[in-house]
Amino acid sequence: MGSRGRVTLQTIAREVGLSKYAVSRSLAGKSGVSDETRTLIRATAERLGYTRPAGQSQTNDIAVVFHDLDAVNSELYMQIQNGVQREAHRLGMALRIRWTHSADQLEELARSCAGLLLVGPHDREAIAAATAVGVPIVRFGWVDPLEQADQITGTDHEAGQAVLQYLIELGHRSICYVNGTPGFRGRRERFYGAREIAERCEDVSLHVLRFDEQAGFGEAFRDLKAKGIHPTAFFCAHDGLALTVVSELLGQGYRIPDDVSVVGFGDFSPATQISPPLTTVKMEGLEGGAVGLRLLLERIENPRLPGMPARRVMIASRIVERRSAGPCRAEPLSN
Amino acid sequence: MGSRGRVTLQTIAREVGLSKYAVSRSLAGKSGVSDETRTLIRATAERLGYTRPAGQSQTNDIAVVFHDLDAVNSELYMQIQNGVQREAHRLGMALRIRWTHSADQLEELARSCAGLLLVGPHDREAIAAATAVGVPIVRFGWVDPLEQADQITGTDHEAGQAVLQYLIELGHRSICYVNGTPGFRGRRERFYGAREIAERCEDVSLHVLRFDEQAGFGEAFRDLKAKGIHPTAFFCAHDGLALTVVSELLGQGYRIPDDVSVVGFGDFSPATQISPPLTTVKMEGLEGGAVGLRLLLERIENPRLPGMPARRVMIASRIVERRSAGPCRAEPLSN
Repeated sequence: MGSRGRVTLQTIAREVGLSKYAVSRSLAGKSGVSDETRTLIRATAERLGYTRPAGQSQTNDIAVVFHDLDAVNSELYMQIQNGVQREAHRLGMALRIRWTHSADQLEELARSCAGLLLVGPHDREAIAAATAVGVPIVRFGWVDPLEQADQITGTDHEAGQAVLQYLIELGHRSICYVNGTPGFRGRRERFYGAREIAERCEDVSLHVLRFDEQAGFGEAFRDLKAKGIHPTAFFCAHDGLALTVVSELLGQGYRIPDDVSVVGFGDFSPATQISPPLTTVKMEGLEGGAVGLRLLLERIENPRLPGMPARRVMIASRIVERRSAGPCRAEPLSN
Repeated sequence: MGSRGRVTLQTIAREVGLSKYAVSRSLAGKSGVSDETRTLIRATAERLGYTRPAGQSQTNDIAVVFHDLDAVNSELYMQIQNGVQREAHRLGMALRIRWTHSADQLEELARSCAGLLLVGPHDREAIAAATAVGVPIVRFGWVDPLEQADQITGTDHEAGQAVLQYLIELGHRSICYVNGTPGFRGRRERFYGAREIAERCEDVSLHVLRFDEQAGFGEAFRDLKAKGIHPTAFFCAHDGLALTVVSELLGQGYRIPDDVSVVGFGDFSPATQISPPLTTVKMEGLEGGAVGLRLLLERIENPRLPGMPARRVMIASRIVERRSAGPCRAEPLSN
């Protein structure tokens, strides 16, 4: 167990009880390592007779690259960044953090780093350019079906299933999925999960409400009621939509959750600011950030060879019960 | 960086350059560690003044527990077992491997092990009994929506999407999903993925064929054709079903892939035994086994505290192109 032959970064790492990453940075003269540690590592390397392999890059930086245009998910992105940073601190690593949507900048970062964490909806061209450089990349965001890319996500599909089950157990049978503006991938995934549960229950109907989010949901809701559809529960694809729905329903005289239940998605800070506080789904961005960084380090230390499959790592969300959802009234709403 | 205080298993592990697991097993007098290593570890523990914390269990075995009734997936289970064993060997660990469906035996294993890998459709009662013991458990198999359980799976849902995209790109517009006997969870997940792609394409129709697998698919296929549905491609939920479909279609005089395309799922050994060899989806059981064992070890070394989310790890499958699927003929079949 364990080669006792050539002295590698790993040998030094074991000897001093630090990560291979810290040893590498230290020997390369990079930041993120204390002077005391650097002295210890250099002395150990010298004592063991370590020599750097010829031609090996001295670049061991890791970059976290956010797409610069996604206000709706900014709170989740901050959690991810925080999670990555905490884990990096624990491992004694430094990070480069950038916000960009430029394919050129992304490619440049890939050339000068040991690995990239990509957060958000970077476009295909930019991802392809960075991928072509050949450094490991872990993506927080959507991938194509069976795309051979490592990905960290939440459990959007499962969350859709779980919320529907939750509302059905509360007695709701006419449920509205509030999608807002179509086009967001996560909202679609949540809907698919919800639909799978709804269609297993003969007496449950699931309606989809789409509307212009600038204009409010009142008109779309009126149209729904005009069709004779009177949902007793609203599953909103995003907490932001839930704020609109709760406030407009309150304004129309509905009591929440006595007359109608509302469930959000995200557990962003407004969820506890609105009254009643929102029952919603908590995404675990902190944990996702930490797990994503560890997966990237694994890929850097043991590069994925041709034919080795990519990995999807999903951090299980959970329903946070507050006061905006409750048991269904006996009769469907009819006002 | 790194506490220099109390001497722990981790301290010794760093000192000798081996895993904490190997150190723990060694000090507990367990198998899986060479005599030479054991001597080194004991000498190091003594030199550093290590004392075992009071009340700490000496059990560090890991058990891999297969459900004993799932012939259809036996090849996948063998891959998983092989993957776990290879990784355990690499890490210098020993495993206990059991085949059981008994809740009592599972609970007993949980009591006598540091962690469990559960493979296959263990029932809820058995899983609940083992979980109540409190040792980390990683499951290869299905979990409930947002269930707080660590899980390793393939990418069933994505595979359904990818196969439909593949067939659509080959020009197929009337596609049959061959489900066989309903009830298998993985088959349902693949169908949901396929349906999501099909319903985005106005000119694509996706039909589901269910039938008694003992009786063959001929009658169900006749019924489909009697309804005027003449699929040019069959996406079979399992390679075993694809064998039935390919052989029955050949028997009826269809040429594959000239008249009709067939895609399987699983990439089990019959996929290359049948003629034409089957285009199918390869599941990565070996990698799943290795990744599952590492996740379990992570949970043993850093137990999941209350509120810490569970993880789903999915190993990306890939489409293996052989000769049973090809471009769609210009005209739909009508014989």
